[in-house]
Amino acid sequence: MTRNRIKALVFDTYGTVVDWRSSIMAEVAALAGARDVTVDAEAFALAWRAGYKPKMDQIRRGARPWADNDVLQRERLDEILPDFGLDSLSEAERANLSRAWHRLAPWPDSVAGLTRLKRKYVLAPLSNGSFACLTNMAKHAGLPWDAILSVDLCRHFKPDPETYRMAYGLLGLAPGEVMLVAAHNYDLRSARAEGLGTAFVARPTEYGAAQREDLEAEEDWDIVVPSLEALADQLERDDSKPTLQI
Amino acid sequence: MTRNRIKALVFDTYGTVVDWRSSIMAEVAALAGARDVTVDAEAFALAWRAGYKPKMDQIRRGARPWADNDVLQRERLDEILPDFGLDSLSEAERANLSRAWHRLAPWPDSVAGLTRLKRKYVLAPLSNGSFACLTNMAKHAGLPWDAILSVDLCRHFKPDPETYRMAYGLLGLAPGEVMLVAAHNYDLRSARAEGLGTAFVARPTEYGAAQREDLEAEEDWDIVVPSLEALADQLERDDSKPTLQI
Repeated sequence: MTRNRIKALVFDTYGTVVDWRSSIMAEVAALAGARDVTVDAEAFALAWRAGYKPKMDQIRRGARPWADNDVLQRERLDEILPDFGLDSLSEAERANLSRAWHRLAPWPDSVAGLTRLKRKYVLAPLSNGSFACLTNMAKHAGLPWDAILSVDLCRHFKPDPETYRMAYGLLGLAPGEVMLVAAHNYDLRSARAEGLGTAFVARPTEYGAAQREDLEAEEDWDIVVPSLEALADQLERDDSKPTLQI
Repeated sequence: MTRNRIKALVFDTYGTVVDWRSSIMAEVAALAGARDVTVDAEAFALAWRAGYKPKMDQIRRGARPWADNDVLQRERLDEILPDFGLDSLSEAERANLSRAWHRLAPWPDSVAGLTRLKRKYVLAPLSNGSFACLTNMAKHAGLPWDAILSVDLCRHFKPDPETYRMAYGLLGLAPGEVMLVAAHNYDLRSARAEGLGTAFVARPTEYGAAQREDLEAEEDWDIVVPSLEALADQLERDDSKPTLQI
């Protein structure tokens, strides 16, 4: 990977750019508090998130037709509410809580880092989130994307190769002109297999204190950094990188 | 159409947000000047643009497979260069000139108007331009879109109904929650038929002094304004419109 060829940075979003765990914890804690129900908010957030991969995998192996991530998150919510004493939530409350995924807060370095990177690169999420979710999340969190790349646009979930191909294809770029920025080694592995550049951002508290995976880079990714501001530091240091030419 | 229901504004781009004619004229004049060729720059811009509809219509009626607007613009360029004494342009010069469509300048009111509208609405182009073209154009011109909606995402050109359906579908909204802003009556007619709100922005010099079409609103569009700043004036006047809730 020649770093100077990179024209666009695409970002995994949940965990890499936004802190879904704390955001979901805050929303469910507020809801439970208002109803005088005691909820282990972290367990709730982790249980909700854990439902997403098996459902996605059903679609990836063709066992169920396409459904976007909003649909999958809502299904999972309905499944776990009884386990947390919240099965009396109304339809409107469930819909609003499910929409918490559109209101996730960024990590403290995300907006500042992206704002700097935007000067030299085309920036977009490349996420399993729905197009609507990623658009709303950017508006809510102030993420300065140039475009939204959701897997809705190819109806394949990451890490299917179609998702990475969709990203460089829609941007009119070669694979080697795009770098994936992600906190997850499996995502970078698949991006590299498709010819993209790779940047690992460590997010060791994404899953809380008990996190065991993705604590560090597992391969020689092109860039390894602890934050998006550190990524901007590294890429700004490349004085040879010309300003983006449109 | 209840104006207060609107959550997203989607914009026709060529002619409505950017002034393609003057931008193309400037690029071809510079190129011709450097080669000591005399070119009627306005005639060149109009001839280039005129080739787009017949090619698009071939695709719309199924007479040729999908090709994005960048491909169509490049084909048309190769067709007209001999008529303007520019057939000696190299491949690199042709590629760069064709890319002039990614570097179009906004109308003087566009960036200011969009910046104000972005506070209350989700903003996106809804354009026959390619995804890459619209992304690059926004970066070059400073258009503060929240997302890029290109017809590449549904492989139908406007005014096919699939394009308007794609817009509200991807944004997770109902048709009546989205308003099309356009300088072309035919585009608004098709958007209204699909249930979208309609705002006409008069751009009477889009095609130059000889423009005969779209000089004014031909139907009772929900809003009729002379600029995007005037659109912001009208929509800001709706005090009852709540701030966008994510």
